[in-house]
Amino acid sequence: MKLATLKDGSRDGQLIVVSRDLKTAQIADGIAPTLQRALDDWNFIAPQLEQMYNQLNSGRGSNTFDFDPKNCMAPLPRAFQWADGSSYVNHVELVRKARNAEMPDSFWHDPLMYQGGSDDFIGPNDDIVLGSEEWGIDFESEVAVITDDVPMGVKVQHAAEHIRLLMLVNDVSLRNLIPAELAKGFGFFQSKPASSFSPVAVTPDELGDAWKDGKVHLPLRSTWNGVQVGQPNAGVDMVFSFPQLITHLCKTRKARAGSIVGSGTVSNKDSAKGYSCIAEKRALEMIAGGEPQTPFMKFGDTIKIEMLDKNGKSIFGAIDQSITEPEA
Amino acid sequence: MKLATLKDGSRDGQLIVVSRDLKTAQIADGIAPTLQRALDDWNFIAPQLEQMYNQLNSGRGSNTFDFDPKNCMAPLPRAFQWADGSSYVNHVELVRKARNAEMPDSFWHDPLMYQGGSDDFIGPNDDIVLGSEEWGIDFESEVAVITDDVPMGVKVQHAAEHIRLLMLVNDVSLRNLIPAELAKGFGFFQSKPASSFSPVAVTPDELGDAWKDGKVHLPLRSTWNGVQVGQPNAGVDMVFSFPQLITHLCKTRKARAGSIVGSGTVSNKDSAKGYSCIAEKRALEMIAGGEPQTPFMKFGDTIKIEMLDKNGKSIFGAIDQSITEPEA
Repeated sequence: MKLATLKDGSRDGQLIVVSRDLKTAQIADGIAPTLQRALDDWNFIAPQLEQMYNQLNSGRGSNTFDFDPKNCMAPLPRAFQWADGSSYVNHVELVRKARNAEMPDSFWHDPLMYQGGSDDFIGPNDDIVLGSEEWGIDFESEVAVITDDVPMGVKVQHAAEHIRLLMLVNDVSLRNLIPAELAKGFGFFQSKPASSFSPVAVTPDELGDAWKDGKVHLPLRSTWNGVQVGQPNAGVDMVFSFPQLITHLCKTRKARAGSIVGSGTVSNKDSAKGYSCIAEKRALEMIAGGEPQTPFMKFGDTIKIEMLDKNGKSIFGAIDQSITEPEA
Repeated sequence: MKLATLKDGSRDGQLIVVSRDLKTAQIADGIAPTLQRALDDWNFIAPQLEQMYNQLNSGRGSNTFDFDPKNCMAPLPRAFQWADGSSYVNHVELVRKARNAEMPDSFWHDPLMYQGGSDDFIGPNDDIVLGSEEWGIDFESEVAVITDDVPMGVKVQHAAEHIRLLMLVNDVSLRNLIPAELAKGFGFFQSKPASSFSPVAVTPDELGDAWKDGKVHLPLRSTWNGVQVGQPNAGVDMVFSFPQLITHLCKTRKARAGSIVGSGTVSNKDSAKGYSCIAEKRALEMIAGGEPQTPFMKFGDTIKIEMLDKNGKSIFGAIDQSITEPEA
């Protein structure tokens, strides 16, 4: 099924069920007020939402309305956990190579993961408001899963059972703040502002054959200022599957219902597939010609991130947003 | 006023108002079900809680009951934001000196802050369950504030207005996992498992004169296995005040209501004040004798963290807990 969160003036919005074709929707009001509440009691709530979803798809929904992503918040407008992996090691290797840094061999075996901030996510069509172009504004197109309660020490073979929903993410990054911040040794903080999510979150069954081995085997399309710049397959060159990332997350802690785990910037070794973040394009330019050519994003730039199924239909709806300055 | 969260089987618990002397309590049921809900609408909710608090302190509360920290969850059992600073730069310098690493001068001017996980906090008397003693289990005694909504780019002179509550924290750390994790460059993750918080969160006015310049000017007492090992003054040698930490947090993002901001391990230059984490004790031993003497925590160890007012009364109640193995 497909779920979204409608703007209603509240902090967590209103949970809605969205039809498979993303055309109509229905308020899940009698079932669960918010997506977090549904995740808190998933085994009880999900079958009721599923029933509503089936009725909606068969044209038997009641009080349905046209689905408009502009009216959506992120599926979880605020979450209790956002842990972002870096599973496409090719991407990490390229970025390092561009600055003549060797990548430790361990990066192929031990996942990189950073703790993200999760109190203020951005809706799929809402502006990305940032204080300065000098920060080096970049998008990062990713896939993410939402889990239920996961015990500490979960094994990889059990981790997949805890994946309840999938989404797309724009993990906005401020490239010019990263070097100084990472040099301090405590990881990303100011360089990773609020992230944006796709209009809908979907259950794994919506992906059909494309959901296999804990990976999504479909191209992720990034369109920057109207030009498609990347379409790498998210199932190719993903060194750590989502179950492996969840196992990494839970080595020393539990993850509670509604935890979001990201794939990291999707990247294929085949550079003809383009890029899911400008930093990677610049790294390729550095390697080829000694200096980067492509500038980072400017105020007014747009970024669209979408994934189509085998029939060309959008699965998650599109993240489609602009970079803007704060109001004076 | 003083607020706590009662275990009631739910994920967020039940908000209660606690008397100043920590002896009696009253359910805030008619006002706000949870602390997060109170923070979401603080200006409307807080005066009602304040009224209940005044009645409770004057013996005019209704349906009051004995307050028992054992029945408490963390004031926010799960939160949307946990950002931990490292304001006692003396501590950072000592730990670095012990491994012959110079500390950059910038550490005195630009706060260190890491993004913590916030989906699963530990109650004040609940066990700290960890998989292995080999991880190098350590406590870190800290002070933390909870904010309301803070705008991006907030200036230091306005940041103090956003502090609604204060708590004590045990920022549990796994020392033997830290070197390899920080070497990967993405900051702490597995080395920072769930943190514990004091039984009650208090409004700044409860601290009286001790709340000054955005710092808490009182000793923070750490008692390990029944022996008091530290009593540094949290107002001394705190290089970055809480307003400065909030400004750092909000440079490129908003912080939403219920954001928790930690001070970092409290540490005074006067080593007679003892230590708030074992790593610091071991660093002093390294500097003095070439190798650390004090081992990290073992299963069964206890740690108590408390702050008394000028009259010797506990302000926040005590974090008082044991390290335990997972059940087989």
